[in-house]
Amino acid sequence: MSENPRDEQATPKILGVVLFDGFELLDVFGPLEMFGNLGDRLDVLLVAQEPGPVSSGQGPQAVAAHGFDDCPPLDLIMVPSGQVRAHLEDERLLQFLRQRAADAELTTTVCNGSHLLAATGLLDGRRATTNKMLFSQIAADRPNADWVPEARWVDDGDIVTASGVSAGMDMALHVVARLFGDEAAERLARGTEYEWHRDAAWDPFAAQAGLV
Amino acid sequence: MSENPRDEQATPKILGVVLFDGFELLDVFGPLEMFGNLGDRLDVLLVAQEPGPVSSGQGPQAVAAHGFDDCPPLDLIMVPSGQVRAHLEDERLLQFLRQRAADAELTTTVCNGSHLLAATGLLDGRRATTNKMLFSQIAADRPNADWVPEARWVDDGDIVTASGVSAGMDMALHVVARLFGDEAAERLARGTEYEWHRDAAWDPFAAQAGLV
Repeated sequence: MSENPRDEQATPKILGVVLFDGFELLDVFGPLEMFGNLGDRLDVLLVAQEPGPVSSGQGPQAVAAHGFDDCPPLDLIMVPSGQVRAHLEDERLLQFLRQRAADAELTTTVCNGSHLLAATGLLDGRRATTNKMLFSQIAADRPNADWVPEARWVDDGDIVTASGVSAGMDMALHVVARLFGDEAAERLARGTEYEWHRDAAWDPFAAQAGLV
Repeated sequence: MSENPRDEQATPKILGVVLFDGFELLDVFGPLEMFGNLGDRLDVLLVAQEPGPVSSGQGPQAVAAHGFDDCPPLDLIMVPSGQVRAHLEDERLLQFLRQRAADAELTTTVCNGSHLLAATGLLDGRRATTNKMLFSQIAADRPNADWVPEARWVDDGDIVTASGVSAGMDMALHVVARLFGDEAAERLARGTEYEWHRDAAWDPFAAQAGLV
């Protein structure tokens, strides 16, 4: 409630990760390792249709602290992959993504989380990438997006999409660098002993999947 | 209910990850992305003193499916890092680790999870590594282990210890290759678009921390 514009910067931004049954563990927690260690600059939370435990595709459950109805305003949104096909026609989920993305500074996806985001229509006419093994299938299914075959991630302004699973960590560090500066991202990579791929064009998996 | 002859050998091994308040997200879920995608060869579960939600150091909670008292026999154990110092004198936790490690095929740690394992005495006289920024401090605190300063991970037979946070994924793929063959590990790395560091001696973070 302050009129001092600096105060706005002092309030942490909020990143919400949208969980659904069968989400992929590393898609969620690789980026959250980075986003979640920024101290008072960024708060991270898990959200799902209803609050409570959500099962990953690998078995272990994470706890959605919020449901769609009680989720606070989100500055950043992240959509992971996993058993996405089961949710492509889940209108309540798609509508939550559409409404929250409209108000968010940045919407991000990891792996075939971009397939889910494409199902909302939000990727129509936008540059995006996805998992390389499923690339051709997803690109055929959602032809209105401008799918980039060789990219670790694609930054298209208010939408940033990452390639398969592990690419989420590189995308997260890119987003941290963009929002909070290179040094913040460097510190996270060093602290987690992570070999950060800083080049969005680094993508040996595109060739392995026969896409280039 | 299948007549598939594979079923006879298909009793999955069980990997238990020991959670505690303030565990580090990627320490747990990086390796579980690998271990958890081996199909019917390995089941993964989370265990803590009591079953239920456990808070990570980054905020999000995971659900321990089992408490120490109802935890099934474990073939593999993994101890993550996080706010480990708060737990170094937690005798119930240390005793659980001692007892379960004695019966397990393999006990693994990620990052300063090795500090916790060292507190049990199980690393006395054993080769081990840990987070490189905290290395000197941990080595001084637990001088009975043979701490290896430059190593992505150290395989000392029935104990395998990884360096900081992200190193857990490389250690996990090493363990998968050791237990289930190179091809299983290759498939996981390719499927998750992960650039696997296959060389246990690869460790640029040791030099960055001034250890070599």
